[in-house]
Amino acid sequence: MRTRVSCAWLAIIPALLWHMPAWPRSPAEIIAAASPAEWRRLDPDNGLLLDLAGHSVIIELAPRFAPLHVANIKRLAHEHFYDGLAVVRVQDNYVTQWGDPDADDPAKARSLGGAAPHLPAEFWIHAKGLPIDRLPDPDGWAPLTGFVDGFPVAVDQAHDRAWITHCYGIVGAGRSSAIDSSTGAELYAIIGQSPRGLDRNITVVGRVLRGMEFLAALPRGTGMMGFYQEPQQRTIITSVRLLADLPEAQRPTLELLRTESATWRALVAERRNFSNDFFVTKANFTNVCNVAVPVRVATPRS
Amino acid sequence: MRTRVSCAWLAIIPALLWHMPAWPRSPAEIIAAASPAEWRRLDPDNGLLLDLAGHSVIIELAPRFAPLHVANIKRLAHEHFYDGLAVVRVQDNYVTQWGDPDADDPAKARSLGGAAPHLPAEFWIHAKGLPIDRLPDPDGWAPLTGFVDGFPVAVDQAHDRAWITHCYGIVGAGRSSAIDSSTGAELYAIIGQSPRGLDRNITVVGRVLRGMEFLAALPRGTGMMGFYQEPQQRTIITSVRLLADLPEAQRPTLELLRTESATWRALVAERRNFSNDFFVTKANFTNVCNVAVPVRVATPRS
Repeated sequence: MRTRVSCAWLAIIPALLWHMPAWPRSPAEIIAAASPAEWRRLDPDNGLLLDLAGHSVIIELAPRFAPLHVANIKRLAHEHFYDGLAVVRVQDNYVTQWGDPDADDPAKARSLGGAAPHLPAEFWIHAKGLPIDRLPDPDGWAPLTGFVDGFPVAVDQAHDRAWITHCYGIVGAGRSSAIDSSTGAELYAIIGQSPRGLDRNITVVGRVLRGMEFLAALPRGTGMMGFYQEPQQRTIITSVRLLADLPEAQRPTLELLRTESATWRALVAERRNFSNDFFVTKANFTNVCNVAVPVRVATPRS
Repeated sequence: MRTRVSCAWLAIIPALLWHMPAWPRSPAEIIAAASPAEWRRLDPDNGLLLDLAGHSVIIELAPRFAPLHVANIKRLAHEHFYDGLAVVRVQDNYVTQWGDPDADDPAKARSLGGAAPHLPAEFWIHAKGLPIDRLPDPDGWAPLTGFVDGFPVAVDQAHDRAWITHCYGIVGAGRSSAIDSSTGAELYAIIGQSPRGLDRNITVVGRVLRGMEFLAALPRGTGMMGFYQEPQQRTIITSVRLLADLPEAQRPTLELLRTESATWRALVAERRNFSNDFFVTKANFTNVCNVAVPVRVATPRS
């Protein structure tokens, strides 16, 4: 005979749900679920705000990796050195570069003021003791990769060296052939496939947090190495300011996801194997230039 | 007593030069020294000429990897399907995409004419017997990489699969969630860090040989996934023609370096360890998206 099925079994549903794997979540859903403690505020003492013809670009500086260059750049910004200079070079699939168009002409070059005219190269730092949030996959360009202070980093433990990798949006200090010829007066951002061959050959000073969609879409220069051939092709730098030098009300307040967080690890896992149904083949792999640390406008503090 | 030194020792100089390592040569010098036989002409039957608002873009199609999509694209070009359509999407560090802005509206969508409205996915081909010019370094994303017909390719020998890798300038056929929803009517080019996670998830149909400096510098769309929000933001496609459909005098004639050539191997070696003195740290590594096959305007045939 048939009996009415008891509903007591419903009591186990919460336990079942608890033990079921989570539904796949999109990167946006993973980020939205991050706790407030998993975000950090951009330190105004390490944030640069560039105004280029009305477009804002925000850069986070990397004092741990290039302390002397970063100090010089802060000094240059503080003294308004960059104001009125220009984007001088845009080479497709490589770099957008800005600085003093007359830098090579001693008669016309702008004075660096109180900033150092010469600095040692800062191509790498010691790796020992560095708090690295490691990526799981091999890199090819370096024995180990991960993130430090939100920056993509490669590490050669055997030689005790760590350096920021030339990924999309990374900012470096232009130099001539002498390795100690960069000062931070001339800067570039990577706008294409990561040119990792530059790693440990040039001093990296930071990363663009906002404004790549402008820097990467500038008209390419038609001269050698993408330099503009006519002055009128250059985009003028209206101003460059350290956020700490601005009145607090004028500072853009950004937050970055901490790479020591569980949310970051979930994002890296998602990038290795996209859960989106569009991806029928899962790569089961990613690399240090194919994952980017999320940045958001800070929510007001109450 | 002093005697006059004999000059007979000079006779050994040619032998010394012969056994000395070659002077490091720049990539431009390596390419300039290539023999005529190391170059191949772009086959007009696999070349597409796009005119976008007066800018020329030249694409080489990849019939070995996507025969059905390539045949469809040729048919669409032959019937002038693309003329008057537009660049509809530019997502920073990802893709520039063009096609019919009304494709999703059956009432307004342009007819595909004699082209197939449905095609199977062509995500990979069989690897067995494929003439691959291998790269020496490991890849991470795939067991083996190299070049086939001038295209960057990854290979999984265990599963007998080979596919074109999503490097800068690679052209693919946009699709919706169904894997067989691409026809070649909607195309995209990669404009940033190579999104290798797309490999084997979408049908790749070719590579941009000329015009990336225009496609990659278009204003980024501000809508979801970089779609333009206003029709007037779109760049109009004046025309798309198969080179073979053009009168011979109107065909741009390009040449590509053969990847089975000694010159190509020398270029790869140079990319792995730049001989330029600027590079004080040699990577001793490169990958399939960090080397690009040289393209030049063909010298007139006498």
